Amino acid sequence: MREFTPENVRLSEDGRSVVILDQRKLPNRVEYLTLSTAEEMYDAIKSLAVRGAPAIGICAGYSIYCLAQKVETENFNTFYGQFKKDKDYLDSSRPTAVNLSWALNRMEKLVLKNKEKAVSEIICLMGAEAKKIQQEDMEMCKNISEYGLSLLKDGDGVLTHCNAGPLATSRYGTAIGPMILGHERGMNFRVFADETRPLLQGARLTSYELYRAGVDVTLICDNMASLVMKNGWVQACFVGCDRIAANGDAANKIGTSGVAILAKHYGIPMYVLGPTSTIDMNCKTGDEIVIELREEDEIRSKYYKEPMALPEIKCYNPAFDVTDHELITAIVTEKGICRAPYRESLAKLFESNAE
Amino acid sequence: MREFTPENVRLSEDGRSVVILDQRKLPNRVEYLTLSTAEEMYDAIKSLAVRGAPAIGICAGYSIYCLAQKVETENFNTFYGQFKKDKDYLDSSRPTAVNLSWALNRMEKLVLKNKEKAVSEIICLMGAEAKKIQQEDMEMCKNISEYGLSLLKDGDGVLTHCNAGPLATSRYGTAIGPMILGHERGMNFRVFADETRPLLQGARLTSYELYRAGVDVTLICDNMASLVMKNGWVQACFVGCDRIAANGDAANKIGTSGVAILAKHYGIPMYVLGPTSTIDMNCKTGDEIVIELREEDEIRSKYYKEPMALPEIKCYNPAFDVTDHELITAIVTEKGICRAPYRESLAKLFESNAE
Repeated sequence: MREFTPENVRLSEDGRSVVILDQRKLPNRVEYLTLSTAEEMYDAIKSLAVRGAPAIGICAGYSIYCLAQKVETENFNTFYGQFKKDKDYLDSSRPTAVNLSWALNRMEKLVLKNKEKAVSEIICLMGAEAKKIQQEDMEMCKNISEYGLSLLKDGDGVLTHCNAGPLATSRYGTAIGPMILGHERGMNFRVFADETRPLLQGARLTSYELYRAGVDVTLICDNMASLVMKNGWVQACFVGCDRIAANGDAANKIGTSGVAILAKHYGIPMYVLGPTSTIDMNCKTGDEIVIELREEDEIRSKYYKEPMALPEIKCYNPAFDVTDHELITAIVTEKGICRAPYRESLAKLFESNAE
Repeated sequence: MREFTPENVRLSEDGRSVVILDQRKLPNRVEYLTLSTAEEMYDAIKSLAVRGAPAIGICAGYSIYCLAQKVETENFNTFYGQFKKDKDYLDSSRPTAVNLSWALNRMEKLVLKNKEKAVSEIICLMGAEAKKIQQEDMEMCKNISEYGLSLLKDGDGVLTHCNAGPLATSRYGTAIGPMILGHERGMNFRVFADETRPLLQGARLTSYELYRAGVDVTLICDNMASLVMKNGWVQACFVGCDRIAANGDAANKIGTSGVAILAKHYGIPMYVLGPTSTIDMNCKTGDEIVIELREEDEIRSKYYKEPMALPEIKCYNPAFDVTDHELITAIVTEKGICRAPYRESLAKLFESNAE
C-alpha cells in the first residue's frame, strides 16, 4: 500500500520544518505554510491556519520536534531548558485547546523518560513519537470510518452537518470518514452537506473535502434538510460530536438536534460518530453540558459585504446544541458501535478498555 | 383614529408621484424613491426596490393613476390609448407577479366602465380605486392579524420564518401582523426570527420591521430553532404562505416544513397565516405544487465578500417547501381560522363567500 501523505499537517521533506495547509484560505486558495521558527508555529495555531483538535495536537508534536533539532548541545539540562521554553510558548498559543497540551505533555514525558540517553538520540525518538501521534489519530479515524461504513450500503444518500473531516483530523476524519473510505473501495454515496450557519464549516470545509476526495457532494442551506429528506434522498445522517454524556446525549454543532428530529420524523437513522475520548462518563446527561454563546456579529455581519441586520437587532448565537439520546440510532466509536440503552453500551466501552 | 401613512408604498403629497421605500437598501439605509415617470416605476418593480406581491399590486395601482394624470386630453380614445400603452409597459416589469396584472386589470376595468364620463372624472375615480386596493389589503391584513392575535396570550414567545410583514403588504402584514397589532394594544411578545437562508429575508426585513415596530425581536440562524424551542422560549410558530392546497398542505419559504416538524416534536402549535386568495381549491394536495429551483450561487457566494464554496460544488437551492397539513395546527385567513379536517374547513370559507 502506498504511503499516505497527510495534507493538513506533515513534516517538510528535510524533516526540519512543519508544513500545514492554511485552512483560513479555504476554499478559495490552497496555500501551504512552512513553519520553521517557534514564532511561525505559534502564529499558525493561534490564527487558526491549523484547526480541529486532533490536527492541532499533531501540529504541536511535529513543531516541538523541529524546534528540538535546533538546540545545539549534548548537555541534557541545557537541551531540556530550551525544550521547556519552546513547549510553554507553543502551549500558550491556544490555552483552551486540550489536544495541544496533551501532545506537548506527551513529548515532554518521552524526553524525561530518556534523559540518560544522548541528546541526538532523544531528538530521534521525538520524531518517531510525533509521527506516532499522527498515526494513532489516523488509525482511530480509520476504525470509526470502518464501523460507520458498515452502516451504509452502496448508493446511499447521507446527510451531514458541520465538519468532522480530514482537515480537522488525519486522513479520513470521523463523520465523513465512512463515505471517503467507501469511495476508496469503489462504493458510491451521495452526500448532502448542511452549510452550517453562522460559520459555514459545511460550505467552506466539508463540501471542499468531499469534493477533493471525489465523493459526490451537494451543498444545501441548513433549512433545506427537511425537503431533502422528504425527497427520499437521505438514507442516513452522520454527524460528529464534541461531548457525549453517560446516557448518550450528544453535544455537537448547533443545528444537530434539529437534524435528529427531522431524521426521526422521516424514519431515517441518525448516527453520531466520534472517538471514545469525547465520551464523558462523569457527565450524567446532556443537561449538564453548558452551551457556549458566541458573538452576535457572527450572525449579523461576518463574511458579508455589508451587514444583513442592524447592529441594534439582538441575536442569539449558541455554538452547540445537545441531541437527546432517544433521537440517536447509534454512537459510532473507534472501539465499536453502541446502541440504546446507552448507559450500558457506553460503559462497556470503558470496561473492555480496562481489561 | 389618526390616519396611517404606509411606509412601503404611498402617493406623494401632491398626488402626482408614487413614493416607495427602497427595499434593496434595507436594513443599512432607509431611502425613499419618488417615481414620476413610467420608466422609474418599471425599474422600481423590476429591480425589487418594491417587493412582496400585495405591495407590487398597490404600487402598480398608484403608478398607472399617476401616469394617467399626465395625459393631456379630453378625448377618451386618446386617453385610453395612452393608458393601454402605460399599462402594458408596467405589466412587463415582472411577468410572473400575479398581483401586478391583477391590479392593472382592475384599473382598466374601471376606466372602461366609466368611458362615458369626462376624462378628468375618470382620472379622479382611478385615484380612489388605487387607494381602495391598498385599503382592502390593509383590512385583509388587519383581519388576519386579529384572528392570529386571538391565538396568543400576553408574554408569549413566537417563532417566525422568512418575511410576511408590512414591507410586503400594507401596515400589519400577515404572519407578523398579530405581534405588531398586539404590541399596539400594549401586549408584549418575544419574537424569534429565523434569518432564512439563502436570501436572509428574516435578517434583512423581518427583524428590521419588528424592531421598528417596537416588538421585542431576536434574530437566529435557521438551525437554532430547535434549541430555542427546547429552551421553552416558543409558545407558537407563525408563518406566511404562498399557496395552500385543498387538503391544507401549505407551500411557503424553504425551511417552513422543518419548523413545523420541530414544533410538533416540542408540542408547540404551528400556524399558517395568509389571505384566502392563496388557497387554491383546484390543487388537491401539496404534491401538485411544483417547487421552484433557484441559482446555486445564492448559496455559494451571494452577499459574501468572497465565495464560501468552490464554484464546482453542486448546490440544491429550492425556494419553497410544502408543509404537510397534519403538521399544521390551524390556517388563519381574513375570514376566520380553519382547523382540520381542512378539506371541509377550507371549502366552507368559499361557500360562505358565495352566499
